[in-house]
Amino acid sequence: MLPRLPTPIARPFHTALPAFREGRDTPRAYLERCLEAIAAFEPVVGAFVHLEIEAARRAADASSLRWQAGQPLSRLDGMPVGIKDLVETIDMPTQCGSPVYEGHRSGRDGASVIALRQAGAVILGKTVATEFAAAVARGTRNPWDPNRTPGGSSSGSAAAVAAGMVPVGLGAQVVGSLIRPGSYCGVIAFKPSLGAINRGGANDDMSQCVHGPLAATLEDAWIFTREVADRAGGDPGYPGLYGPALPPAAARPRRIAVLETAGWKIADRAALAAFEASVDRIAAAGVVVVRRADDPRIEAVEQAIGDAQAASVAIVGYETRWPLNTYRAKDPSKLSRFMLERLAKAETLTLEDYRRLLADRDRARATYAALAGTFDLAVTLAAPGIAPMGIESTGDTIFNTPASLLGTPALSLPVMHVDGLPLGLQTMGFLNEDAALFGFSAWLQALLDPSGKA
Amino acid sequence: MLPRLPTPIARPFHTALPAFREGRDTPRAYLERCLEAIAAFEPVVGAFVHLEIEAARRAADASSLRWQAGQPLSRLDGMPVGIKDLVETIDMPTQCGSPVYEGHRSGRDGASVIALRQAGAVILGKTVATEFAAAVARGTRNPWDPNRTPGGSSSGSAAAVAAGMVPVGLGAQVVGSLIRPGSYCGVIAFKPSLGAINRGGANDDMSQCVHGPLAATLEDAWIFTREVADRAGGDPGYPGLYGPALPPAAARPRRIAVLETAGWKIADRAALAAFEASVDRIAAAGVVVVRRADDPRIEAVEQAIGDAQAASVAIVGYETRWPLNTYRAKDPSKLSRFMLERLAKAETLTLEDYRRLLADRDRARATYAALAGTFDLAVTLAAPGIAPMGIESTGDTIFNTPASLLGTPALSLPVMHVDGLPLGLQTMGFLNEDAALFGFSAWLQALLDPSGKA
Repeated sequence: MLPRLPTPIARPFHTALPAFREGRDTPRAYLERCLEAIAAFEPVVGAFVHLEIEAARRAADASSLRWQAGQPLSRLDGMPVGIKDLVETIDMPTQCGSPVYEGHRSGRDGASVIALRQAGAVILGKTVATEFAAAVARGTRNPWDPNRTPGGSSSGSAAAVAAGMVPVGLGAQVVGSLIRPGSYCGVIAFKPSLGAINRGGANDDMSQCVHGPLAATLEDAWIFTREVADRAGGDPGYPGLYGPALPPAAARPRRIAVLETAGWKIADRAALAAFEASVDRIAAAGVVVVRRADDPRIEAVEQAIGDAQAASVAIVGYETRWPLNTYRAKDPSKLSRFMLERLAKAETLTLEDYRRLLADRDRARATYAALAGTFDLAVTLAAPGIAPMGIESTGDTIFNTPASLLGTPALSLPVMHVDGLPLGLQTMGFLNEDAALFGFSAWLQALLDPSGKA
Repeated sequence: MLPRLPTPIARPFHTALPAFREGRDTPRAYLERCLEAIAAFEPVVGAFVHLEIEAARRAADASSLRWQAGQPLSRLDGMPVGIKDLVETIDMPTQCGSPVYEGHRSGRDGASVIALRQAGAVILGKTVATEFAAAVARGTRNPWDPNRTPGGSSSGSAAAVAAGMVPVGLGAQVVGSLIRPGSYCGVIAFKPSLGAINRGGANDDMSQCVHGPLAATLEDAWIFTREVADRAGGDPGYPGLYGPALPPAAARPRRIAVLETAGWKIADRAALAAFEASVDRIAAAGVVVVRRADDPRIEAVEQAIGDAQAASVAIVGYETRWPLNTYRAKDPSKLSRFMLERLAKAETLTLEDYRRLLADRDRARATYAALAGTFDLAVTLAAPGIAPMGIESTGDTIFNTPASLLGTPALSLPVMHVDGLPLGLQTMGFLNEDAALFGFSAWLQALLDPSGKA
């Protein structure tokens, strides 16, 4: 029998800045509040695989001095953050959720971690990732109900943000690893445009993979991503995150495309009802809402993303044969049965099969991009329902794979509830138009959740 | 005073296959001939940073048994190969030409190394790379004249192939690291289309970087690249090498574009004369040869690639800030002054600067691609002259950066000589049309060097 947890409350950071400036609050005091949440939740939730509390206190003290001197390094100076345990950190192990990397220390920071340190962030710890960011969970519990999964693979970052342990956690999505845990944990999840921030020093070199934040607020998500991209750039060959230094202001969309995706058939009734109620409120506010039956371009997108889940899994499988085959060769017992089976299946694919998957993906991207002139954004569910019971499975990725396949920016907005548990509205924008997506999403969040809280 | 070396003779592998099949020769005997060349050249040339001779003998013996049983694993079963010391190998250190990685063992094979082992290749050793595949040489000497550089960064692979120590060495090019050493050492260098073979397990995640072979013959270069791509695929998100299983047959081109590139102004007179003599022979054979003054599309390409060297260095600099900044933070004395200065310069670039570089590169690629309908290939020099004296500098990359920037396939053909030393004719094709480039290049090689030897 698990102990009863307090109600989780995500902890915004951007709202603390005026008090830092005016000396009414300090990053050190902010960190101590985070540590109180960790004391309250972490023994049950298990969001972190590693914490460096004293190093964080020193970093927070240094930040406090900078704010006191009126010389913060950036808008995230003093922000405590958790780093998904795929990304290297010089002072902590990087274990990728796998026994293969148990105790592994790379002795260097990943590109985004360096950027965060340069911006004054306080690297508090490494958050739990599923095995190599795939399906096998590593024990993290949902702070809203510890009998439920927080989702994955960015399990720890989502749970830590939901419980107010940190305002932002770094995550990554290649199939469904940001948007779904954001939905299950009732926090903002931001999957930026493909290549938006530098993945250097992560062990996830797949073509659909992108790093992004789980965050208490849209503002924190934007500032975090912006400050990292400004310093570390995007992935090699990509233009990096486009958009302003400050979070984009709320903007009312004119026309929204509703995407059912293949998830529609398996979404639970309560989730669909909550989604329809949201759509009704959006339409009632004067936004034109268009569906597949209304517009052949939307129907074409639905067709193009109908197999997004299978296609994503196949693409990722082919692209991760190496290095998984090296780990299997050395000691197969350190890989899960799931991973060994995925690898064996991927090894039946030929280069020609993979090319066909890429060509189909290119066509799907072009079909989706054609919506841009007519629609400001697309909306769908972020998950088929609230977080499922049990912590073995991290839930179904079916609503997440369309944006992963398309490479478009997506957000999960914590604006719905079912049975008192959070459910995300997923908004999807257009490649490199992340700022526009934020503006429209801020307007939708204000409309659907005037309290500003999930 | 360096000892006098025998005349280097590259050692084809594909020509040995009939004798393997018929039992007149074996991979083990082939390996022993390679080891004789190593005994003769290596003490002076220094092509290898690590050799695993007994493991290679065991692998060659296993291959001999497969050929004897009529069951070779592929057309490169039994091929001794050298692996550029950027790419991980399970049984040897991977040191990236840098004291930062001195003695480093990753404990796994890179993606291409696994593919090579699966195809039956004999991994003989790690070949010398310059410091992190950039400018600082690591002591390798040119087998044609040990007082001269073999070029770089794939210094060891080029020298080893030239001296007949191995028929093929894996290399990589992001600025000028395959084509130039191929030219200086008088061997085939093949820079495939961007993304053609999987770089997994190399420490060179730059957007222009591609791996490819230095080889004794075009046939060996093709077979090597084909067999690796079939097993390991291309880079994530790329379709991998296109083309047939067997080396493309020689094909007479109809129209060739001569590209001067920015190198024209600094190429030495003898190299330009050798190039013009080659072009005259090509024209005399009935091929239409067109230059910048004759066709505005070629002039447009010349303009677009005029800054290719500066642009390539800037792009690579920006993309390698990480991880070089982590090495500098830990111990700057382990980086060369060159590398520290390049890093400092790269750190003055903003994300916006980098975006402009990418946008210019995209435009240059489109301008070059527009030649495809009219011209079968482009030709230029592979280097401004024969290998320069001295082994501190690896020579000027100016003739190599156009193909690097453009991402197109390129070859250096050892068909010219100046003062008895080799000079390469560079042929450049069109993206993913590597097989066509091989066919035309085979025809050009037969025309310009009927002996088939450099």
